[in-house]
Amino acid sequence: MSRQGFVLWFTGLSGAGKSTLAQKVAPLLRAKGVRVEVLDGDEVRENLSKGLSFSKEDRDVNVRRIGFVANLLARNGVCAITAAISPYRAVRDECRAKAQVPFVEIHVKAPLAVVESRDVKGLYKKARAGEIPNFTGVSDPYEEPTRPEIIVHTDRESADESARKILSYLAQRGLVAE
Amino acid sequence: MSRQGFVLWFTGLSGAGKSTLAQKVAPLLRAKGVRVEVLDGDEVRENLSKGLSFSKEDRDVNVRRIGFVANLLARNGVCAITAAISPYRAVRDECRAKAQVPFVEIHVKAPLAVVESRDVKGLYKKARAGEIPNFTGVSDPYEEPTRPEIIVHTDRESADESARKILSYLAQRGLVAE
Repeated sequence: MSRQGFVLWFTGLSGAGKSTLAQKVAPLLRAKGVRVEVLDGDEVRENLSKGLSFSKEDRDVNVRRIGFVANLLARNGVCAITAAISPYRAVRDECRAKAQVPFVEIHVKAPLAVVESRDVKGLYKKARAGEIPNFTGVSDPYEEPTRPEIIVHTDRESADESARKILSYLAQRGLVAE
Repeated sequence: MSRQGFVLWFTGLSGAGKSTLAQKVAPLLRAKGVRVEVLDGDEVRENLSKGLSFSKEDRDVNVRRIGFVANLLARNGVCAITAAISPYRAVRDECRAKAQVPFVEIHVKAPLAVVESRDVKGLYKKARAGEIPNFTGVSDPYEEPTRPEIIVHTDRESADESARKILSYLAQRGLVAE
């Protein structure tokens, strides 16, 4: 229980499966005695960043706040899972640099064509219709991580496979029990 | 170590001694094996609320964010100490109502005349000169708690005495070891 905390930083396009995977990984970690907190993108916007837009500047502020809170939790022994798109590389790297704990970046990767065809929340359709400005992948950039600790391919792995890959990595790093 | 977390919510005028007392209490709790995180007013503004003003509306947003983060920490076994002025009763009570953990409100109390005569940061002088708008106690209200768990009188108790009073209360409540 007094194990060291760490940050699991999921990044990827809207609809790539970040939240699904976070919700899959969290109970597996809890079963190993790890305290887990999932900072979901939508929940964080509501509670920490209401009023911020999706401009680059405001997105960066939002992601910095997520990084700040994740670090607070993790330095107190919690596994803080973040599941926001966090599209800009520089600010993700800034969060990594400021973290006082192990920082594990997970690229939740699927081709735009795939996530757009799924369009679980109907957001891509709206974005293509010009109803949502600054939509990542459509009218705003997504900068892939250059050296993520883990890449999961959600277009060709099941969520269970991706979750096992993550748990296996964490065990190898000594962050959770085998 | 797996003891339940809780929130220690300090409230009081600028200069009443909230941060001083938080910094006094934190190591005493750590010595009892409690994980402690101090959410200082200035640090939180910088990291979670940059750009917010000191209008009632923006202060309320800031205090809600502090409450959100304090609860996240505390529900993971941490003692989250908040040390922001948090002048409005309704939003403090809202944070209490939303907390999923024991919430201990501490009124750090000293007469305005006393804290103003100390004026450690020189802020009261500036506020009286009209250089700082919406300054609590001068040009903005401070609403005292009606039923705080603890009141410490920093005009007539030493910081050590106040800290002992708080520790003694927490031990009685079973939140820390005797």
